[in-house]
Amino acid sequence: MPPLHEIAHLAHVELRTPVLDESVEFFTRYLGLTENGSAGDSVFLRAWDDYEQITIKLTGHATSGVGRTNLRAASPEALQRRVKELEATGRGIGWADGDPGYGQTYVFTDPDGHEFGLYYESEWYTPPAELAPSLKNQAQAYPSHGVAVRRLDHINYLGVEPVVNRDFLRDTLGALVTEQIVLNDGTVAGSWTTFTNKGYDAVYTRDRTGTPGRLHHIAFAVDTRDGILRAADIALEQGVHIETGPHKHAIQQTFFLYVYEPGGNRIELCNAGARLVLAPDWQPVNWSEAERAKGQAWGLKTIESFHTHGTPPVEEAS
Amino acid sequence: MPPLHEIAHLAHVELRTPVLDESVEFFTRYLGLTENGSAGDSVFLRAWDDYEQITIKLTGHATSGVGRTNLRAASPEALQRRVKELEATGRGIGWADGDPGYGQTYVFTDPDGHEFGLYYESEWYTPPAELAPSLKNQAQAYPSHGVAVRRLDHINYLGVEPVVNRDFLRDTLGALVTEQIVLNDGTVAGSWTTFTNKGYDAVYTRDRTGTPGRLHHIAFAVDTRDGILRAADIALEQGVHIETGPHKHAIQQTFFLYVYEPGGNRIELCNAGARLVLAPDWQPVNWSEAERAKGQAWGLKTIESFHTHGTPPVEEAS
Amino acid sequence: MPPLHEIAHLAHVELRTPVLDESVEFFTRYLGLTENGSAGDSVFLRAWDDYEQITIKLTGHATSGVGRTNLRAASPEALQRRVKELEATGRGIGWADGDPGYGQTYVFTDPDGHEFGLYYESEWYTPPAELAPSLKNQAQAYPSHGVAVRRLDHINYLGVEPVVNRDFLRDTLGALVTEQIVLNDGTVAGSWTTFTNKGYDAVYTRDRTGTPGRLHHIAFAVDTRDGILRAADIALEQGVHIETGPHKHAIQQTFFLYVYEPGGNRIELCNAGARLVLAPDWQPVNWSEAERAKGQAWGLKTIESFHTHGTPPVEEAS
Amino acid sequence: MPPLHEIAHLAHVELRTPVLDESVEFFTRYLGLTENGSAGDSVFLRAWDDYEQITIKLTGHATSGVGRTNLRAASPEALQRRVKELEATGRGIGWADGDPGYGQTYVFTDPDGHEFGLYYESEWYTPPAELAPSLKNQAQAYPSHGVAVRRLDHINYLGVEPVVNRDFLRDTLGALVTEQIVLNDGTVAGSWTTFTNKGYDAVYTRDRTGTPGRLHHIAFAVDTRDGILRAADIALEQGVHIETGPHKHAIQQTFFLYVYEPGGNRIELCNAGARLVLAPDWQPVNWSEAERAKGQAWGLKTIESFHTHGTPPVEEAS
Repeated sequence: MPPLHEIAHLAHVELRTPVLDESVEFFTRYLGLTENGSAGDSVFLRAWDDYEQITIKLTGHATSGVGRTNLRAASPEALQRRVKELEATGRGIGWADGDPGYGQTYVFTDPDGHEFGLYYESEWYTPPAELAPSLKNQAQAYPSHGVAVRRLDHINYLGVEPVVNRDFLRDTLGALVTEQIVLNDGTVAGSWTTFTNKGYDAVYTRDRTGTPGRLHHIAFAVDTRDGILRAADIALEQGVHIETGPHKHAIQQTFFLYVYEPGGNRIELCNAGARLVLAPDWQPVNWSEAERAKGQAWGLKTIESFHTHGTPPVEEAS
Repeated sequence: MPPLHEIAHLAHVELRTPVLDESVEFFTRYLGLTENGSAGDSVFLRAWDDYEQITIKLTGHATSGVGRTNLRAASPEALQRRVKELEATGRGIGWADGDPGYGQTYVFTDPDGHEFGLYYESEWYTPPAELAPSLKNQAQAYPSHGVAVRRLDHINYLGVEPVVNRDFLRDTLGALVTEQIVLNDGTVAGSWTTFTNKGYDAVYTRDRTGTPGRLHHIAFAVDTRDGILRAADIALEQGVHIETGPHKHAIQQTFFLYVYEPGGNRIELCNAGARLVLAPDWQPVNWSEAERAKGQAWGLKTIESFHTHGTPPVEEAS
Repeated sequence: MPPLHEIAHLAHVELRTPVLDESVEFFTRYLGLTENGSAGDSVFLRAWDDYEQITIKLTGHATSGVGRTNLRAASPEALQRRVKELEATGRGIGWADGDPGYGQTYVFTDPDGHEFGLYYESEWYTPPAELAPSLKNQAQAYPSHGVAVRRLDHINYLGVEPVVNRDFLRDTLGALVTEQIVLNDGTVAGSWTTFTNKGYDAVYTRDRTGTPGRLHHIAFAVDTRDGILRAADIALEQGVHIETGPHKHAIQQTFFLYVYEPGGNRIELCNAGARLVLAPDWQPVNWSEAERAKGQAWGLKTIESFHTHGTPPVEEAS
Repeated sequence: MPPLHEIAHLAHVELRTPVLDESVEFFTRYLGLTENGSAGDSVFLRAWDDYEQITIKLTGHATSGVGRTNLRAASPEALQRRVKELEATGRGIGWADGDPGYGQTYVFTDPDGHEFGLYYESEWYTPPAELAPSLKNQAQAYPSHGVAVRRLDHINYLGVEPVVNRDFLRDTLGALVTEQIVLNDGTVAGSWTTFTNKGYDAVYTRDRTGTPGRLHHIAFAVDTRDGILRAADIALEQGVHIETGPHKHAIQQTFFLYVYEPGGNRIELCNAGARLVLAPDWQPVNWSEAERAKGQAWGLKTIESFHTHGTPPVEEAS
């Protein structure tokens, strides 16, 4: 297995939406992201504390769902090492130009077919005067409207076989597996992995429909649990659909709120407090069916749509 | 320079106190730490989310101040690599037994004379039944008394020449310099460095008395800014001396409260929200005298004792 | 109808429990109340910001449920006026000695049979040295353990006919009706009334079993929504049964957590933010069945036990 | 003395500003108030949970300062009773039309010359569709921008002789004196009075310049202490001048942030948690000079401008 920290962090993610204008409105007015250019059918959006150019690439598309997930390598050397390993898996697609502000990007897919891009070169964001922050250690002024999420936090894929995808991230990229759902028959129904000191950056949970390449949700970090409650208040007033929460996950102990953006993609607002995974020898915490049956941390039962809703939508088997 | 992440994290710190019993009372009753054994003149204390055995080793001593700072290497190999580099500096002291629950520890000093220990082997903490957590991904039950700090966050040394010590941490251990105070004459009056994705783990600020080896403060992480406010309320009721705060630092944007423990050491309660330093090519943010003159983030003027109080106390030059 | 503010506020409530010791443990260790004497089978408990002697009178009893609810009149004259009105209803029982620290108390029952006591004379609480507050405008030191509720907030009775009881409080005591649940057939299924500037002090919701005199819950005020989240964390660790929440009620917009104390009585921890009812001509806000079907403020469906659990328990009709 | 609760609550206040447009920008963009009409040189602004038409009447003027403070009587009868008493003092000016949405208003001045209006008739606010709240027990949609203050909280006048003005409010309007600053020579340097269950609605602190009729500050209620911290973050980014805070007052224990609006008037953002004054026989809490010398609750020294800045500005005696 590769060493830890070969991947510096989860970087920008491409989300697809059949209603681009409404989705842009959601990301800017509700979440408080800022537009930072566009190209073709895509609008680039950024969270105020992202040092890079793009946090979300929102692309008009026939359906909802996730496009390319970008990861930043820890160094030029780490990039070369990872690419070599990826090529060996046969899952590599090859080098491509990055999005505006990003260097050459190596494109590949995980076994489930989700597309990834790995790069190192990145042009730091410099805000225009009207978005300049008052404190120089901050990428952009803190917005005073909407939820004002700080940064992208993690991505949760649906996967036909979570364990295969988890192994792929672990063995080619050096992801650390921090928590898992292990069913009574031994199947891994969910796996949480990290590249950083956060509890998780990339998650796979089982796609009950057996459809590859789908998305469960992407999550944005909010600074406080109180900010998540405020996010619920704003969702209520702005007519944003709340799926579940606010509540606290048992897994990873994340305080969460799940909403749907107009394109149908599930968006999480999350807060982990001061919790970090610092141990280099962290062993996966495995949750059994019996433990999961207790519900979330404070007893909330996981609602049915959380198990069934993914993007893009699929036809139910008859 | 070594790669980043050779050091997994700042681990337990030894604090010295001339009033051991009162200091233990402060750490357990006010901060909410738990005793976990003792040896000789030392009492071992742990924060509830520390996966290792010890968070603070509190040692009865003639004076206040800091003893050994322990760092955990990222792997056995990283440990060997770092020791080799440390030996080359001539600042190595040699291998020693670790504190109970810790493996062989390589002891050395920084140029200012602060003692460090570097190790890899660590016995994970298993709580007794009465301290078992309800959620299995947590080291120990969350205490319902006192501030209930989650974990050690960082240490801030006083140093005669911050830049020399900063270079030492960077060049031998791979610390990343994230922020600095640079005076008009070019002197680095303070330097913040990190081994992790936190904004800082180890800090040097200038000792105006020119005395080597002293401590400015150690800090504990609290999950919310609201928890810091509550910490101030509890300090008020328990008669704990508040030096300054709660307020928000401009540097690193940390929300802080500074108190003194009975032995005289300064203790910070801190919260960084969801802020992380994820960029592997992060460049030091340098703060000028003019920028520092604006005070903390929201304008609070830094109080005089913050520049003068360190432990152990020193005789003022006459 | 009497003028508003004839009743100064809801005062101490007697709760019955079949497991007195365990209930005392819950109220002191979990909620953070302080014992303040005892008499016979009763233990007197107080919240830290209650200016009077008693917040809860906890009485060992064959069953759970509510004993006497005490109300403080706004003045000696208001007391006389209310007693005269109460006597006219035929629901008066007569004058009795108050609990220790309270003057002569006029005892009566509401139409549902819940017992009330009305008094004016009250001996202010003076804390012993070890409970003396640091700020002189506070009744008692803020406890640094448990939820540390500030004060009693409200009481929610079950009533066979909420509207009859609501009218009784309004017509004899001057309660202001602030919100109501009105079913499609016009039945008032719940009624929220206040004596103060809080949104509500005394509530009646329909007892589906048709049993008079029962309790739905009593509630304690917590200073922040964040404090309610912390209360859930502590409940989880201390093994306190969480029934539902934390979430935000649509009615009155209260942020809530419901737990059961060991005797079986439902206890709410609540926060209303800065919300007050200041308008003297406030008109009842009526919630329809359709509006109620939307769930709580952020969409949480009201759980079944919230409609069925009351104390003391009753035999289900066969 | 009149009974308590003859005055229902502090209602809208007229503020004067020499820079009307900039002040409107501050109140709408920073505080999150909504415009609700205008008349002559005045713009009417409202906080989202105010049931009446106007929270602040902002009037273009040669200087900063306070115009009329409006109070709502508890009933038509209470209005008549208070007017009778006011007329007897010789401080009555007479009946006048209220601002749009308000009935006949009795105008008078306190001994210091601050102008007041007392009325009962008030037309409840009905929001236009785009400002309609999602929860029907709320006056207006919660804004998702700026501080989003809930309501006006209190007003703090400067007075040449606080005790004379305090007596006037108490004796003619039934204000309850809750806290005071009493100097060593017996002078009352500050007096906090309330008409409601809040700790205070109207405050007089001593004007060191001896100039009558000036304003120290008006305050708006924010739902959480965390919201006050966020208000400081937004002030920093929007270039709003922070005078002092966030911190916690010893007097009344209010968590505060003081800023200046562009016209020069001091504005407080405040949170009292769940603290209420419920006792009808509450006795004034008197703070001595020695007690005040300890600073605010957590030790912050009161800054000099807090004693010297008032509006309108006055020429310093030479």
